[in-house]
Amino acid sequence: MNLCDLSPQYVRAIAPYPPGKPIAEVARELGLAEHSIVKLASNENPLGPSPKALAAIDNALLDIARYPDGSGFELKAALTRKLGVPGGQIVLGNGSNDVLELVARAFLAPASSAVFSRHAFAVYPLATQAVGAQGIEAAAHDYGHDLDAMLDAIRADTRVVFIANPNNPTGTWLANPELLAFLQRVPENVIVVLDEAYGEYLPQDKQSEALAWLQRFPNLVVSRTFSKAYGLAGLRVGYGLTSRGVADMMNRVRQPFNVNSLALAAAAAALDDTDFIARSYALNQLGMRQITQGLLLMGLDYIPSFGNFLAIRIGNAAAMNRRLLEKGVIVRPIGNYAMPEHLRVSIGLAAENTTFLQALESALKEQA
Amino acid sequence: MNLCDLSPQYVRAIAPYPPGKPIAEVARELGLAEHSIVKLASNENPLGPSPKALAAIDNALLDIARYPDGSGFELKAALTRKLGVPGGQIVLGNGSNDVLELVARAFLAPASSAVFSRHAFAVYPLATQAVGAQGIEAAAHDYGHDLDAMLDAIRADTRVVFIANPNNPTGTWLANPELLAFLQRVPENVIVVLDEAYGEYLPQDKQSEALAWLQRFPNLVVSRTFSKAYGLAGLRVGYGLTSRGVADMMNRVRQPFNVNSLALAAAAAALDDTDFIARSYALNQLGMRQITQGLLLMGLDYIPSFGNFLAIRIGNAAAMNRRLLEKGVIVRPIGNYAMPEHLRVSIGLAAENTTFLQALESALKEQA
Repeated sequence: MNLCDLSPQYVRAIAPYPPGKPIAEVARELGLAEHSIVKLASNENPLGPSPKALAAIDNALLDIARYPDGSGFELKAALTRKLGVPGGQIVLGNGSNDVLELVARAFLAPASSAVFSRHAFAVYPLATQAVGAQGIEAAAHDYGHDLDAMLDAIRADTRVVFIANPNNPTGTWLANPELLAFLQRVPENVIVVLDEAYGEYLPQDKQSEALAWLQRFPNLVVSRTFSKAYGLAGLRVGYGLTSRGVADMMNRVRQPFNVNSLALAAAAAALDDTDFIARSYALNQLGMRQITQGLLLMGLDYIPSFGNFLAIRIGNAAAMNRRLLEKGVIVRPIGNYAMPEHLRVSIGLAAENTTFLQALESALKEQA
Repeated sequence: MNLCDLSPQYVRAIAPYPPGKPIAEVARELGLAEHSIVKLASNENPLGPSPKALAAIDNALLDIARYPDGSGFELKAALTRKLGVPGGQIVLGNGSNDVLELVARAFLAPASSAVFSRHAFAVYPLATQAVGAQGIEAAAHDYGHDLDAMLDAIRADTRVVFIANPNNPTGTWLANPELLAFLQRVPENVIVVLDEAYGEYLPQDKQSEALAWLQRFPNLVVSRTFSKAYGLAGLRVGYGLTSRGVADMMNRVRQPFNVNSLALAAAAAALDDTDFIARSYALNQLGMRQITQGLLLMGLDYIPSFGNFLAIRIGNAAAMNRRLLEKGVIVRPIGNYAMPEHLRVSIGLAAENTTFLQALESALKEQA
């Protein structure tokens, strides 16, 4: 007998998330030296982690034979100090991916549905399908969220709406008043997940005001991560901010030790390193300008981005991706986002951006 | 409205796993100095991590701004070298807790059931309930698994059977021939999870033969962890070994980056440190003798254990637990395992075991 038949149909139908290729894997496959490869594929911080995080890890290393603190006391206390949200309204995750899945597992089931936008982050449909709920894709507007279309898509059985702001992989952004108006119109029995993984890359005047909405909208879950601007993707830590009741449900389906102890220590320390975030933001602004100017010179079109990445219209993106890989540059094809003509490139260090632009220019010439 | 009502009933009914109290928390609650506290509550390795694991972490620290390798290539290659099981039959988990949940999420659903033993590891009923499946508890025999009772408990809708060997928190053990006979009798459409979290603490002549059974029983999942003898509980890494088809289903519900990069590196390095495992085993044997002899002198009864812990019959265990906490000794009350008269103590360093025995003796005198 085929044991796969024992799985529920919705599990068998999952097409797993296609992650960016690690440098070591590309080096193996193409016979390239690892140090010669430039990876701009996973929206990581090219500065690496905050030095404060590294110091905290060093300190916590002595204790790694111990289980982590499953309640995350110290990290939650640090978040409370910084954000003013009490610990009972915080849910820690093994990356914000975990936070998104906790919402799905706590509130979705085979009889319910979740709404997300076309071209929005791939984990929303995946997490929805993994619990057997129905995913409803709302039409997009200029590659960004169309909040009216999302409202229209909400059905009686809808329990969750996922919104990425800024959105990955398109870099589109929704202003605070639009989101607030949306929250006012969403039925109060629908959980609204506002995924702010890239929020630190927004300029001062566009920063999220969502924390001020938590008290008024107990159905709001704000999700954030230490994987992007904080430079801790390898450690896996993110968090959700919501009402006590929603946090309680999410914690019930959370693995008791879902966040490792080095991640807990590093994240608490990184939170205080505002200087590091300021440097990361400034570097990203410069790199974004460098790459967009290079693209304009090549006559290439792109979607204006509020994140640390850029979706570039390239024509046959799969073919261009192969050419770039052969030149040792890893970017991300996003055909799985119904964008087969775009490649997503992460903003790197100035030298990495230059390597990317040169490889792109040379690949375009080969193609011509 | 109460947003909790939006959760499926089976989620609302979850009583979360009660983890051992971290040292920092006990220190806060009781106003004790952290260094004066002895924690023998979570079956951790008192030697700490393998030095080879620490060196590997140091090496991997440079890259923590990068996402982990979601495929776990290097760790799987190390497991294949050591165990002879191909990478396609290995599923990596965020601790073996994650492996157990992946089985539940891939194979259980509200219309199916899972069988586990009374007094067996608490995560089996939790993982079953979190996906809305029905948990069936089979009667135990002398606090250990009664395999005949478990066979009898299997119903037409049963998809998974969980067996812990040795079992936590009782320390009981099933011999290889008993397990093999069980596998031969279980219907081939039922997944059998053999949780060997404590397997490294078995003497040579009792080591598991389960890997040799994988080819014959595609429904077998052997689950192992780096949290116990390998001393990496804080990092969160474990693995499942099974057939390709079952691994494929588990990987579909796995978070793409479920295991952090430091854990991947540390685990691969620790696997090769056979000397460290030998020392950990020897220390545990000595400590087990030290504690059991101390208990005999006090006239206390215990369940003979094949793990790195011991369940001691103490009478009013909740009261004794409080007395021990006040003396700065953290052990584990196991009332949630339907064993309100037992306390579980982990085997520590000789000095820690002595502190525990002295605290126990003094607490018994206070009680008398």
